[in-house]
Amino acid sequence: MRNQTVVDLRIDADWVIPVEPAGKVFAQHSVIVGEGRIQDILPSHEADVRYLFRERLRLPGHVLMPGLVNLHTHAAMTLLRGFADDLPLMTWLNDHIWPAEGRWMSHGFVMDGSRLACVEMLKGGVTCFNDMYFFPDATIEAALEAKMRVAAGIIVIDFPSAWAADPDGYLLKGMEVRDAYRHQPLVSFCLAPHAPYSCADKTLEKVQTYAAQLDLPIHMHVHETHDEIHKSLETHKVRPLERLHGLGLLGPQFVAVHAVHLTNEEIVLLAEQGCHVAHCPTSNLKLANGVAPKARLLDAGVNVGVGTDGAASNNRLDVFEETRLAALLAKGVSGRADAVPAPAALAMATLNGARALGLDSEIGSLVPGKQADIVAVDLSGAAMQPCYDPISQLVYCAGREQVRHVWVAGEMVVKDGRCLSLDEAHLVRHAHQWRERIAAG
Amino acid sequence: MRNQTVVDLRIDADWVIPVEPAGKVFAQHSVIVGEGRIQDILPSHEADVRYLFRERLRLPGHVLMPGLVNLHTHAAMTLLRGFADDLPLMTWLNDHIWPAEGRWMSHGFVMDGSRLACVEMLKGGVTCFNDMYFFPDATIEAALEAKMRVAAGIIVIDFPSAWAADPDGYLLKGMEVRDAYRHQPLVSFCLAPHAPYSCADKTLEKVQTYAAQLDLPIHMHVHETHDEIHKSLETHKVRPLERLHGLGLLGPQFVAVHAVHLTNEEIVLLAEQGCHVAHCPTSNLKLANGVAPKARLLDAGVNVGVGTDGAASNNRLDVFEETRLAALLAKGVSGRADAVPAPAALAMATLNGARALGLDSEIGSLVPGKQADIVAVDLSGAAMQPCYDPISQLVYCAGREQVRHVWVAGEMVVKDGRCLSLDEAHLVRHAHQWRERIAAG
Repeated sequence: MRNQTVVDLRIDADWVIPVEPAGKVFAQHSVIVGEGRIQDILPSHEADVRYLFRERLRLPGHVLMPGLVNLHTHAAMTLLRGFADDLPLMTWLNDHIWPAEGRWMSHGFVMDGSRLACVEMLKGGVTCFNDMYFFPDATIEAALEAKMRVAAGIIVIDFPSAWAADPDGYLLKGMEVRDAYRHQPLVSFCLAPHAPYSCADKTLEKVQTYAAQLDLPIHMHVHETHDEIHKSLETHKVRPLERLHGLGLLGPQFVAVHAVHLTNEEIVLLAEQGCHVAHCPTSNLKLANGVAPKARLLDAGVNVGVGTDGAASNNRLDVFEETRLAALLAKGVSGRADAVPAPAALAMATLNGARALGLDSEIGSLVPGKQADIVAVDLSGAAMQPCYDPISQLVYCAGREQVRHVWVAGEMVVKDGRCLSLDEAHLVRHAHQWRERIAAG
Repeated sequence: MRNQTVVDLRIDADWVIPVEPAGKVFAQHSVIVGEGRIQDILPSHEADVRYLFRERLRLPGHVLMPGLVNLHTHAAMTLLRGFADDLPLMTWLNDHIWPAEGRWMSHGFVMDGSRLACVEMLKGGVTCFNDMYFFPDATIEAALEAKMRVAAGIIVIDFPSAWAADPDGYLLKGMEVRDAYRHQPLVSFCLAPHAPYSCADKTLEKVQTYAAQLDLPIHMHVHETHDEIHKSLETHKVRPLERLHGLGLLGPQFVAVHAVHLTNEEIVLLAEQGCHVAHCPTSNLKLANGVAPKARLLDAGVNVGVGTDGAASNNRLDVFEETRLAALLAKGVSGRADAVPAPAALAMATLNGARALGLDSEIGSLVPGKQADIVAVDLSGAAMQPCYDPISQLVYCAGREQVRHVWVAGEMVVKDGRCLSLDEAHLVRHAHQWRERIAAG
């Protein structure tokens, strides 16, 4: 017998789609996992010769792909899913969401809501989410229970909440959370100033100082509504992005969420500054804000990832559906059926999100040396037949219901469609209790 | 014991959403089924007193809703799913779809493709589809095997195919098919002239004569692309809808598929004539044709249903996703977050489709006396929690993966997510064979 390396896990699949290089499909390959990382990707017949493995999984009819990165969430808002639908943004916020949050916000609310989000996302192939919410320590705790990767937002807003009283309070508490969890391998951080209209210049200057000193991304709602832009012109005499640029916030660490309303100059500015966009098409449509110009952003060279937003404005934390919608809208709005072809859409849902979070050396593609964040998608059912091109099938045809197994850092967290790390029935009972309380007002 | 009626089936669910009246939700109700029809809908505790039943199904956490009506399909095109993505309509048709169809079109192709579509649609809660394709007898055979309702298109087009040589041939063969299957209770018919650009005036006049004499709906692609409108202006000096109006085709029997590009006058015309629209948002986006003005159509009083189109341009025959997209796009495009609220969206997917097909006295809502075309949707999982409003949950949150049981005319055709009427594994093997042949050219 030849010299064989002993590894933890070998997964054989009909197709491996690594995302890097773009458009590549490996047929009848094996992914070799050891010490939580991808050790090798090679033809299955070669794997027989080169590796011994503690565990082997044969997945005929399946695709292996990188875990999805949900680039914008308010995970805990699952508890407000469907609480106030079919309403305009400011009515929705002022009359429904903010009062409910004001009444119920607590560590327990965020824990339970985030757990519910984690089980939904994991079962849907999402292995990493970029969150912005109060009590980020609770969201981190939920993600760690779920054994899921989280980029936790150090939220900053000029309004008091149950979490903190003022911008300095938000920053202080956020830094305490960062200190407590910064050594957790599944946890990273962003500064998360809520939006230009909810943060004064002074607040944003402090955010920028922290981001620069700690080398953290900045995750912020930007240009979501016309209203926000008009108010900025009234108050600050400039549009929000110009104001943020003046304050020094724009740069390769800046993740602009929504970015629905952009002039050509603003698209060029985002590209020149190396900014990223978290595109949330369902939320933007549902709140009647419009459609971000993603084909033009991509053409300009802006890195665009995909986010679901919170469950109160989506109401599915489903990155498969969000990615398909992103690709479809790009075509429908640009008038070019070849805009955002399937491989580009798949990159938006994986590698682009990782890049926006500064995590692309670790996650976002199946490449030896990277973390083994892997999703096995079952393309064997009738609704997935025939399969001429598995990348096309993943983007235009598959749904999260085709996700069969999920690994984060090499650990299996979803098996045969069931979440191993969280107790779904228990979470559902808690959600029922929250519904009773919240619906009663 | 009091006088109790003996019935075939009693289904108890947490919610029954009948669609008629609009927005109604019955909590803790039972649907009583006998002789293939809905006999009663009543509180479950009253059902205990009033009925004896041969079979009872208790579905806690579930919604019962009417079967979905897919108002525009080319079912057999499942065999070309993902065959040519990310291409503009005319390239897609001229260089890919039409040559493949020219090469492979046959009774067997349409049988296998339609069976595949039926199993996908049934499992996704679709109980009736309005089809347009060659060899409609094969599509009907597939639907009857699947025990599914079909409105079969008597396709007419000025180009020869393996099915017929010229318009008279199409009409003749279509009438033969109608004669053969008109007594099947699950089968109805439409005249299906392909499109204004593929049917001469003479052809359309004959179609109109047949439709009037036989009292059949007319199912036709209309105003899908700008190109089609420009060519009509060149050739006929009028836009297609004006031409169809001149030929007497518009009226309460006319189902306009796509209707993406409409002037205000054309919206008024469709409303005044009592026409119906089959809205296919995914297909329109994917082929970069744009977004139909559905909020304006509904405001004008036009009856709008939802269609998936064929799997070559969608690529999911998923009316849940299509309905959500219809509601979301209506908001995003109109700028009104209250456009097409959840109850209106649900009606589009059910009753409006039935009305367009002239079948609304039989299907499209859960009303005593109507056919028992029923879908049980499981809202008990974590991704569906909490549930403040089950109609909202169905439209904005649920997916076809939540469909658990499906009945057509009182017969169970999907049980626990498995199709009882067709052999899925067998169909998948056939799909593999077709892929090999078609991909080889």
